[in-house]
Amino acid sequence: MLPHSHYIVPDKARLLDEFKNLKVSDLPVPSLLIDKKKFINNSTRMLSGAKALGVNFRVHIKTHKALEGVRIQLQGDGSYTSDKIVVSTLPEAYMVLPLVDEGIVKDILYGLPVSKSMLPEFARFQSSVPSFKLMVDNISQVNALKEYAAENGCKWTVYVKIDMGTHRAGLEENTERLHSLIREISSTTTIILHGFYCHAGHSYDARSGDDAKALLVSEIKHANLAAKQALAVDPNLQLQLSVGATPTAHISQQVKSIQEIEDALGEKLVGDLELHAGNYSCCDLQQVATGLVDLEDVSIYVLAEVISEYPGRGNIPPGEQLINAGGIAFSKDTGPLPGYGRIVAPVEHREWHVARVSQEHGVLQPLSQRAHFIPYGTKLVIVPQHACMTASNHAWYYVIENDIVTDVWIPAKLW
Amino acid sequence: MLPHSHYIVPDKARLLDEFKNLKVSDLPVPSLLIDKKKFINNSTRMLSGAKALGVNFRVHIKTHKALEGVRIQLQGDGSYTSDKIVVSTLPEAYMVLPLVDEGIVKDILYGLPVSKSMLPEFARFQSSVPSFKLMVDNISQVNALKEYAAENGCKWTVYVKIDMGTHRAGLEENTERLHSLIREISSTTTIILHGFYCHAGHSYDARSGDDAKALLVSEIKHANLAAKQALAVDPNLQLQLSVGATPTAHISQQVKSIQEIEDALGEKLVGDLELHAGNYSCCDLQQVATGLVDLEDVSIYVLAEVISEYPGRGNIPPGEQLINAGGIAFSKDTGPLPGYGRIVAPVEHREWHVARVSQEHGVLQPLSQRAHFIPYGTKLVIVPQHACMTASNHAWYYVIENDIVTDVWIPAKLW
Repeated sequence: MLPHSHYIVPDKARLLDEFKNLKVSDLPVPSLLIDKKKFINNSTRMLSGAKALGVNFRVHIKTHKALEGVRIQLQGDGSYTSDKIVVSTLPEAYMVLPLVDEGIVKDILYGLPVSKSMLPEFARFQSSVPSFKLMVDNISQVNALKEYAAENGCKWTVYVKIDMGTHRAGLEENTERLHSLIREISSTTTIILHGFYCHAGHSYDARSGDDAKALLVSEIKHANLAAKQALAVDPNLQLQLSVGATPTAHISQQVKSIQEIEDALGEKLVGDLELHAGNYSCCDLQQVATGLVDLEDVSIYVLAEVISEYPGRGNIPPGEQLINAGGIAFSKDTGPLPGYGRIVAPVEHREWHVARVSQEHGVLQPLSQRAHFIPYGTKLVIVPQHACMTASNHAWYYVIENDIVTDVWIPAKLW
Repeated sequence: MLPHSHYIVPDKARLLDEFKNLKVSDLPVPSLLIDKKKFINNSTRMLSGAKALGVNFRVHIKTHKALEGVRIQLQGDGSYTSDKIVVSTLPEAYMVLPLVDEGIVKDILYGLPVSKSMLPEFARFQSSVPSFKLMVDNISQVNALKEYAAENGCKWTVYVKIDMGTHRAGLEENTERLHSLIREISSTTTIILHGFYCHAGHSYDARSGDDAKALLVSEIKHANLAAKQALAVDPNLQLQLSVGATPTAHISQQVKSIQEIEDALGEKLVGDLELHAGNYSCCDLQQVATGLVDLEDVSIYVLAEVISEYPGRGNIPPGEQLINAGGIAFSKDTGPLPGYGRIVAPVEHREWHVARVSQEHGVLQPLSQRAHFIPYGTKLVIVPQHACMTASNHAWYYVIENDIVTDVWIPAKLW
C-alpha cells in the first residue's frame, strides 16, 4: 500500500463549519490562502490561449494537489476545457478519481521517470482511468516495464522525457541513447510510445516575453526533433509533442497559430502539439520575476502575524520585524526576487518583505525608506516565493472571495 | 480552536501492522528514518554533559516533534534526566501532555515571542502543565499579556529573549529598550520574570570546538549581563540563564565546571545556568559541518530510490543520477556542506550526494572520480542537510534498529 493510504485527510465539513464566512483577518496564523477569483482567471486565461492556438492543454496539478483546484484548472469559465492532467505523485492521481467518474479527467500522466519499486502500484492504478501514462528517460526503466508486463500480462503507454538543457530529468535528442530507447520501445509490444515531453524548467529564469518565447520555441524544437527520430524508426507512430512550463505556457498565449511556430522553427511539426503547465493557476514571486505575471494576478498567499519589532536593526530604517511564519510555512526556496515573500495586504505595509526565515519564524525587512513599523498583532497577506513548495507545507487551504472564506481545499499529501 | 485540532494523526497501530519488522530496503520511498540507537546515544551524551557541569538541561523538541523522541531526549539511558522542554508550536505542547501526566514533563516553554492572537490559546493551555512559560522581547507583547491578565484574571511567567547577534528574535542587553521591558515586567504583578534566553543561531556556522566554545561563553555572557540589569531593578529575582544551540551545547560537554565558565567570563554568574538544544538528538549535515559531530552520529535519514542515470552530464564522471525525493522530502535548506543530502548506505555509494532538488525529484552528483553509477531501483539512505526542516515534511518516521523497523513515530504537525 502507498504510505498515503495511512494519511487521514482532515474533515472538510468540520473545517467549513469552523472557518467558513470568517474574514481573512480572523483566520489562525500561519495559514495558506487561495483567492478563488484569481485562480479561476489564471486558469481560464491559460485554457483560452490553448484554444486560440488550437492545441490541447494538459494541466499539471502538483502546485496545489487539491480536487477543487483541478476542476477549475480543467474547466476555467467553461469556454474551453481539458480532460488531461499530469501528476507528480500517485496520491494526486488517486485524489482525482471522482473527476474521472464524472468524465472530467480522462487522461493522467505520471510525470516523474518511473520508479522500479512502484511498478505494482502503477499497474494497480491504471485500470482506474481511461488512459494512464508513464514517463521514461532511460533504458533501465523500459526494461523494467517490459519485464513487469511479461510477468503480469499488462501494457504501458509512455512519454519519453527530453532534456533541453534544464538537466533535471530527460534524454537529449539526436543521441544514440535516445535512439536505442526508441528502438527498444518500438520492438516491444507491451510498451506504446505516445510522445515526447519537454519542460523548460530554466524558463523560470526568463526575464521577458522574448526570453520565454525563445524557450517555448526551443521546447517545441527539441520535442519535434525527438519525434522525427522516432518516426524514422516507425513511421506509423502518432506522436504528441508535449511542451511547457508556466513561463513558456504564458507566452504561448501570444502565439497566434501553429504556422507561426513552424515559421519560427523553420520546419513542420511532425506530431500534435500539447501544452502543459501547473504553477500558472497560483503563480508566485518566481513567476512575477519573469515579467509575465503581475503581483496582482498571484492567487496564493501565506497569512502571518507580526509578533515583534527591532528598531535600528538591519540596514534600512526603521529596522526589522518578526512574524510567526518561517521556513515551514513558506519553504526555503529562493528566487530572483529577494526573500521569501512580498506583503500585499494591508496595502499600507507593502514596503515590507520577508527577508529571512528560520523553521518557525520569519524576519521582515523594509524595501524602502518609506516603511513604517507594522503594529504588533497585525495579520499580513504575503505572496510566497514559490507556490508549489509553499502549498506543500499546509494540510488545507482557506479559499477566499472578497476577503471572506468561502471554501476549504484539502490537498493530496505524501507519496 | 487551533488548526492542529483538525489534523487527524495517522493510526500508529495500523502503521506498525504494515511496516514493523520490514527491512529498510523494503520501505516505500521517499521516507524518513530514525536510527533509534544513535538517537538515544546523542540524547544520553547531551544529558551527561549537563550532569557533569551540574546544570539543568531544557530539551527543545521542534526537530522531530514526536512523543517517543521527547521521552528519549528527557531520559537518555536514565543516568540523568530532565523534565523541562521548549516547544516551537502549541501542537507540540499538546502532544507531550501524556508525559506531563506521567510526571516526566513538568515545565514547558513556548519558544517564540508571543503572538497577540494566540493569548487565549496560551491561557487555555497553561493549566495543563505545572509550569508554562512564554517568551517576550518587546514591550508590545508585555502590554498585551498585562491587558489579557487584567481582563481574564490570569498570570504569566516569561523568559526575555536576548539577541546576541543572530538577529532573529531578541533584545540586546544594556539597552534602554531592555531596561524599560524589565521595569515594566517588574512593576506588573501578573507577569513573572523567570530568566533570560540566548540562542546562538549563528553557532551553526562554527567550524571548530574553539569557535563553538567562544559562542557558548558569549551566550552566557549576554544572558548574565541581562540578568545583572534585571537584578539592579529587583534584587530579589531568582533568574535562569538559559543558553544553547546544538553546537554550543555540544561543546559545553567539554566544560568541567561553572568555575571554568566564570573564569572565561571574568565574572560571577548571577543566575542559574540552564542549557537548551534540540537538533543534537538527530543532527544533520549542518551539524557535521561544525566539526563537533561525525557523519556516523547522525540519526535521521531520507530513504530514496534511484530512478534514472545521465552518463556524461555534469562536470564529474560518470555523470548524474535521479532520485525520487526532492525538496518536499529534504526541504530546500542549504548549509556549508554542499547539496541537500549525503549518501551513507549502501556504503559502496558514498561517493554520491544530492546536489540539486526540485519539488519531487533530486539529482545526484559524484563527490569524486571514484564514483560508479548506482543501479536503477537501488534504495539509498541519505543524511539530510537540515534535520528540522526535513522532518517537518514527513507525516511519520520509520524508527529503525539494525536496519529493521521497530517503531513508527508520529509528529505533532501544523500550528
